[in-house]
Amino acid sequence: MLLLHLSDVDEASWASAFAEALAPYPVVRRGDDFDPAEIRYIFVWKPKPDAFDGLDNLKAVLSLGAGVDALLKHPRLPQAPIVRFVDEDLSQRMSDYVVAHVTMHHRQFSRFRDDQQARRWSQFYPPAAGETTVGIMGMGVLGQDAARRLKPLGFDLRSWSRTPKAIEGVEGFAGDAEFDAFLGGTDILVNLLPLTPDTAGILNRETFAKLCRDRLEGGPVIVNAARGGHQREADIVAALTDGTLGAASLDVFEVEPLPQDSPLWDAKNCYITPHIAAISNEASGVRYFSTILRAHEAGEPLPNVVDRSRGY
Amino acid sequence: MLLLHLSDVDEASWASAFAEALAPYPVVRRGDDFDPAEIRYIFVWKPKPDAFDGLDNLKAVLSLGAGVDALLKHPRLPQAPIVRFVDEDLSQRMSDYVVAHVTMHHRQFSRFRDDQQARRWSQFYPPAAGETTVGIMGMGVLGQDAARRLKPLGFDLRSWSRTPKAIEGVEGFAGDAEFDAFLGGTDILVNLLPLTPDTAGILNRETFAKLCRDRLEGGPVIVNAARGGHQREADIVAALTDGTLGAASLDVFEVEPLPQDSPLWDAKNCYITPHIAAISNEASGVRYFSTILRAHEAGEPLPNVVDRSRGY
Repeated sequence: MLLLHLSDVDEASWASAFAEALAPYPVVRRGDDFDPAEIRYIFVWKPKPDAFDGLDNLKAVLSLGAGVDALLKHPRLPQAPIVRFVDEDLSQRMSDYVVAHVTMHHRQFSRFRDDQQARRWSQFYPPAAGETTVGIMGMGVLGQDAARRLKPLGFDLRSWSRTPKAIEGVEGFAGDAEFDAFLGGTDILVNLLPLTPDTAGILNRETFAKLCRDRLEGGPVIVNAARGGHQREADIVAALTDGTLGAASLDVFEVEPLPQDSPLWDAKNCYITPHIAAISNEASGVRYFSTILRAHEAGEPLPNVVDRSRGY
Repeated sequence: MLLLHLSDVDEASWASAFAEALAPYPVVRRGDDFDPAEIRYIFVWKPKPDAFDGLDNLKAVLSLGAGVDALLKHPRLPQAPIVRFVDEDLSQRMSDYVVAHVTMHHRQFSRFRDDQQARRWSQFYPPAAGETTVGIMGMGVLGQDAARRLKPLGFDLRSWSRTPKAIEGVEGFAGDAEFDAFLGGTDILVNLLPLTPDTAGILNRETFAKLCRDRLEGGPVIVNAARGGHQREADIVAALTDGTLGAASLDVFEVEPLPQDSPLWDAKNCYITPHIAAISNEASGVRYFSTILRAHEAGEPLPNVVDRSRGY
């Protein structure tokens, strides 16, 4: 039996889609009449504190989110394996966001906006894509997809990850030892890391000060499409103000919704979107997890299982 | 002998680069002491009215610009073949501009800017790239390069050109008969046409009204990276005001620099850049035309010769 436990999304709609995809396999929601001991799989998004109570025969936790940082902090999370959502549609949307913001900054959007507001005709030729280095932090499914789409645009690419990753056309850096070298050649820094104790707060003043200052007119740029917990917002405001950063595109925030009194709203060259870079699509989510559940019932191993020691 | 006649660019710098690349072939500039009858090639940008006077033995006119619309209007243009600049670097820069503006509009930049200014946290998920159709007008070197870079991003692509062009992954439309069908399925219209009597003013109210209105939140978008003569600016202002267009990115204008009193400067969702989408790079220009000149002197035919009856 599959139990759905989804907060802040349309649980009923997901339930009927799963019921149809899995029939005759039983699908229930919170509040339905069922025996918790019968539940083999639970599909969760923002689970309540009692979400897992009594689920003594759980075979797997299926996570709607690609990031599991919040889920891993659940105080009564069972020991069953956690399956992350890995989805082409989600990767596509995330890359849509990343490419739009990287290219906008590469083409000096802020400068031309200021000129337009001043009715100033001031010709300036941005560098070609090949003269600009995009550094991607995180080379999982999302980081690799972003690299795959930025490459044909001609950008010089480099990546930084916990362990070395060999991706064609991307200069790889790994671990603490290579972090400074990675930053030193990066003009536009894209964060697609998982949020773990190691990566929390990584977008801070010290990091910004190490970015390349020689090439991009106006200063280096950050694009954060991962988690608000990666960024120190006071540092971002200060760096945008004093020119350590030329611009920032932020889709995520330390507190969401971003509080009304946050100085980020009108920080210089800060581009805010309300955590909409990518959403898990219902049709592809149902297809993905139904396939996994059926295969697992037939004896296949679970794919994309979270390594709790790594945190993703 | 090669004569350089370049206005508004650093002619001296080009001359010394050509002299070095072509040595011992003689290279001269206006004002130098030379016999006009000795000039076999002239390299021009914005030629003055007397530019071609006395050049009775000219074998070719080499044009720094990729667009030759202004050159073809020169009242004393000689009959010698005109060679256009076709350059990978120029195509790359033009595509950089096109991709940045297409993706920015696809990701609803204007909407999120308005929300940010109002400190409004309003979640809205832009469609995936594959749910958005980019229609490219003009499938020459620049149009094909833009298509080649937009394709890996996942956009649905279509093109419109004078004669049918078969480009993989791009739905082709051609000629007057298919113009309306092309527009009807286009969410973001990119203009990369050559400016000819047939294409002058093609970005007008009637064209805008035929674009697809169903998919892109806020309305269809135009991106003009070709020539100001393609657009009717009064129509653009009206269309942005009444919602016929959702946004416009314009790099070129009917009169340049854009006059201080133009209503475009603060038209709603109009994104102005001062004709900087792409510039002909000196290093690649010298390499390109030196190779052509030497090959032509050795008896090879000229490449990329302008067809004066087509106008490009």
